Amino acid sequence: MDRPWGLVFIWVLSPLWISLFSGSHLVLGKAELTWTRRAAAEAEAVAAISCSGHGMAFVDGVRENGRPVCECNNCYSGPDCSSSGLIVLLTLLGFGDPLFLQPYWRRHAEGSAVVISGWHRMSYDADGRPYMTLELERHIRLLHKLVGNAAAEGKQIVFGAGSTQLLNAALHALAPDNSSSPSSVVATVPYYPAYQTQTEYWRSKVFEWKGATAEWLNSTEASTKDFIEFVTSPNNPDGRWQAPALAGSSVIHDRAYYWPHYSAIKSPADDDLMLFTLSKITGHAGSRFGWALIKDVKVYNKILQYIDTDTLGISRETQLRALKVLKQTISQIKKREDMFRFGYSQMRIGGLNSTPSSPLPTAFPCRSSPQTYAWVKCERKADEDCSSAIRAGGIIPRAGTLYGADSRYVRLSLIRSQDDFDQLLTRMKALTAQ
Amino acid sequence: MDRPWGLVFIWVLSPLWISLFSGSHLVLGKAELTWTRRAAAEAEAVAAISCSGHGMAFVDGVRENGRPVCECNNCYSGPDCSSSGLIVLLTLLGFGDPLFLQPYWRRHAEGSAVVISGWHRMSYDADGRPYMTLELERHIRLLHKLVGNAAAEGKQIVFGAGSTQLLNAALHALAPDNSSSPSSVVATVPYYPAYQTQTEYWRSKVFEWKGATAEWLNSTEASTKDFIEFVTSPNNPDGRWQAPALAGSSVIHDRAYYWPHYSAIKSPADDDLMLFTLSKITGHAGSRFGWALIKDVKVYNKILQYIDTDTLGISRETQLRALKVLKQTISQIKKREDMFRFGYSQMRIGGLNSTPSSPLPTAFPCRSSPQTYAWVKCERKADEDCSSAIRAGGIIPRAGTLYGADSRYVRLSLIRSQDDFDQLLTRMKALTAQ
Repeated sequence: MDRPWGLVFIWVLSPLWISLFSGSHLVLGKAELTWTRRAAAEAEAVAAISCSGHGMAFVDGVRENGRPVCECNNCYSGPDCSSSGLIVLLTLLGFGDPLFLQPYWRRHAEGSAVVISGWHRMSYDADGRPYMTLELERHIRLLHKLVGNAAAEGKQIVFGAGSTQLLNAALHALAPDNSSSPSSVVATVPYYPAYQTQTEYWRSKVFEWKGATAEWLNSTEASTKDFIEFVTSPNNPDGRWQAPALAGSSVIHDRAYYWPHYSAIKSPADDDLMLFTLSKITGHAGSRFGWALIKDVKVYNKILQYIDTDTLGISRETQLRALKVLKQTISQIKKREDMFRFGYSQMRIGGLNSTPSSPLPTAFPCRSSPQTYAWVKCERKADEDCSSAIRAGGIIPRAGTLYGADSRYVRLSLIRSQDDFDQLLTRMKALTAQ
Repeated sequence: MDRPWGLVFIWVLSPLWISLFSGSHLVLGKAELTWTRRAAAEAEAVAAISCSGHGMAFVDGVRENGRPVCECNNCYSGPDCSSSGLIVLLTLLGFGDPLFLQPYWRRHAEGSAVVISGWHRMSYDADGRPYMTLELERHIRLLHKLVGNAAAEGKQIVFGAGSTQLLNAALHALAPDNSSSPSSVVATVPYYPAYQTQTEYWRSKVFEWKGATAEWLNSTEASTKDFIEFVTSPNNPDGRWQAPALAGSSVIHDRAYYWPHYSAIKSPADDDLMLFTLSKITGHAGSRFGWALIKDVKVYNKILQYIDTDTLGISRETQLRALKVLKQTISQIKKREDMFRFGYSQMRIGGLNSTPSSPLPTAFPCRSSPQTYAWVKCERKADEDCSSAIRAGGIIPRAGTLYGADSRYVRLSLIRSQDDFDQLLTRMKALTAQ
């Protein structure tokens, strides 16, 4: 992917910049605003609160003297997050909070802001059908077409509260109707830990967690079982391209990372059941929005039934905002301000990679490609418990054992904020210098 | 409850009224808006679209000629919903879509509008803890204190995607850890149908639906079982005050209707596990927001675990908007513009009641008190299938059998829009005139 605009994106839109603009008394020559003005003014005032680039204030933050306080990044403190004197012994750096796109949305403030009226979509229905707005569905289809990562034509779409809810929904949808022969749920090591924890959580009569696909590949028992297989491609945590391992299994294709900022887009994925999440596309993890593309109408109806039974649809505020940020994303595709290019550049600029010029100490060879996560192996003989070795350096990784892998592995996240990435580099360097 | 302001609320804030205000060029004497202006102007333009009082246009509605179309109420059609010539043979009037509060939020447009920036709470966390904002929690506690309907002090709060998700969470939380003795899940007839459908849906090893409490009251087998009991008070559909029926059961107290527009508030409810939903408080069913008040820390942690495993928290857009409408609700409590008084008046004005002056034909005596739903019994001998009898009149009720009751009963909703209520009256009159 070309990057004609290079380092320009390191510059993060600062609150100061917004203040300057606020002072310019830009007159648009339109009718004055009435009932929206107060909320708009509040949002602009909160956006102008300075947190020194190491935190942020939110409209619904805790207030002191009537003003939302700064919520500081890891290792920063003080009223404006300017103090880094606070010694934080352990910092959580394994969890995939996708804050690397936050600066993009500050740059695109006008195109991504949304006003929600007090009477916006109060009903259980939307557009005369259950909960899902047609405009959002249309824009999702358009996005896939423009990006070229999935064949959405001829498939049904179901919205869920992140891919988390859709993973659960898909599991229940693919399981048999009765409990006489529960499905065996499997994934290939290393796998996203939620596949196991979610499957086990339900204590279901119709499906059960049966571990790694490798254990079933040459098993004579395998032919007697119905498998549901989770396949993530590109894979989390190690970026591998994956296909189903077991012949004849029902497959849940998790496509969370098949977007241009994480991965080359080889061709439109065209599987029977594919899951996507806004969290990993635009970075809006807090919104809890995802969607499934589904070929089979029976599976579609069963996934809808899950969403209906579990939460009676999903938030309309989320749908409105998802529409806004996807519209903005679509409007910029292949332009200079393309979100995918921005995201890619953030990871390249800040990212670890496996080339010799990598800033990551070579004692921890990184096997991740694309660079969403560092899937790290501790190679020193003494560091059999890699997680403990890394925690000794003040970093909380996610243990490889959660991913079904050896305790010599851990996952580190490269898609968190710049502050977190800086901490990660500093601490990893100190750790290997010891 | 006194109603000093009576019928003034029948007048629904019309788009025309908003247009007049827009034209007044109200100048607030503050700095000009910058990045929020476009979204604010769009919201005001969409709010000004006239749908003849029989529908509404939304910012994320389907567009024709660049403008969101009117989404019309039942039995209305045309570009501006002014045509009622369309013959709709059957209208769904049993489902509890709480649109009766929509006019309130149009009246309180300024106080309930909210702007969401592109970078608002993108993280999985909020206020440095998992997903739940502290300000929203604080306002929920304040609301309970002001209304006097629940003792929130000393209890933990968990947010969920409506009480729907919290009912599921509570069920999983109260069930035993292992499957050696699954809990028996019960409710007293007539009960909210989801208690049964949700419980059965999970095909769980640790709980199972065991029907009506009445069947267990004098059963010798009861002493060998662990019961989880759903108790709704005031009850849906018949408004009865309820207490747990079985001694020693674990109880999920559904308090959805224990608010002043539906019910007298006798004293603060102080049960171990109580559920509330924004849907029935402010009418924002589409937001999917509810909360649980929980005494026991173990149960609290298990309910949190459900939300984490099922959806990894709930929407931040929803939380921000819930905060805004609850703040507005709180600011008006016991004032002339009190939302609860408005809601009460809407149901009294439009409502069915059981007095002789009721507009509801006496052939269908209404037993509901408060007036959220009409729990109707068909008393004519031929109308053993009450649901079919009512459908013959063009109304789709919810069948009493869904509530565990006799087929002579149906539920009709009185909290839908004025148009739906008018349809209900017209059709019920025609039906009994036959």
